[in-house]
Amino acid sequence: MNNLLTELPENLTGEVFQTIIENKGVKIERITSLGQVTPAGEWYDQPQNEWVLLLQGRARLAFEDGREQSLQPGDHAWLPAHCRHRVSWTDPDQPTLWLAVHWPRPE
Amino acid sequence: MNNLLTELPENLTGEVFQTIIENKGVKIERITSLGQVTPAGEWYDQPQNEWVLLLQGRARLAFEDGREQSLQPGDHAWLPAHCRHRVSWTDPDQPTLWLAVHWPRPE
Repeated sequence: MNNLLTELPENLTGEVFQTIIENKGVKIERITSLGQVTPAGEWYDQPQNEWVLLLQGRARLAFEDGREQSLQPGDHAWLPAHCRHRVSWTDPDQPTLWLAVHWPRPE
Repeated sequence: MNNLLTELPENLTGEVFQTIIENKGVKIERITSLGQVTPAGEWYDQPQNEWVLLLQGRARLAFEDGREQSLQPGDHAWLPAHCRHRVSWTDPDQPTLWLAVHWPRPE
């Protein structure tokens, strides 16, 4: 994938996760969403640190403490290991592109 | 810095490096350029791995083997540790925004 903004997956019936680079425990991926959300009542609870940047579209993250964060292009979120979160909304009318960087949690 | 695309530095007489997050050896930063290039004859030769994504603007990277890579928004480059490179051009007419992810090289 040479360009993260113009080369979109053709089939967006599900979210699409594409690894850009994976090296020495660090993984950088692009996630493409089109209206998908984390199923109700489910939470991401990851053993790795994650940082996400919204590249295009619109989305909303929800955290277990009730906090919500709306994201537009250029907005970013820090999701340390085991920070329980879910994607509560993504724009159903246009693809939403996320850049996600994952790396190992503290020892 | 809440938004990487809209909150730009006021003074761009030099390149501006802003750390977004630094954790467990991984550093994510935004670099803002306005026409600056790496001085002629100088090379970046870094002990860490780096991956860059052009978020806005235009730029060109040059590598020691003579290869050049033009970057527009969404384009990215993998710069493994000690891959000698320089920024040979950035757009003088608009700010160029880079996202850079740095992490430790292989043991």
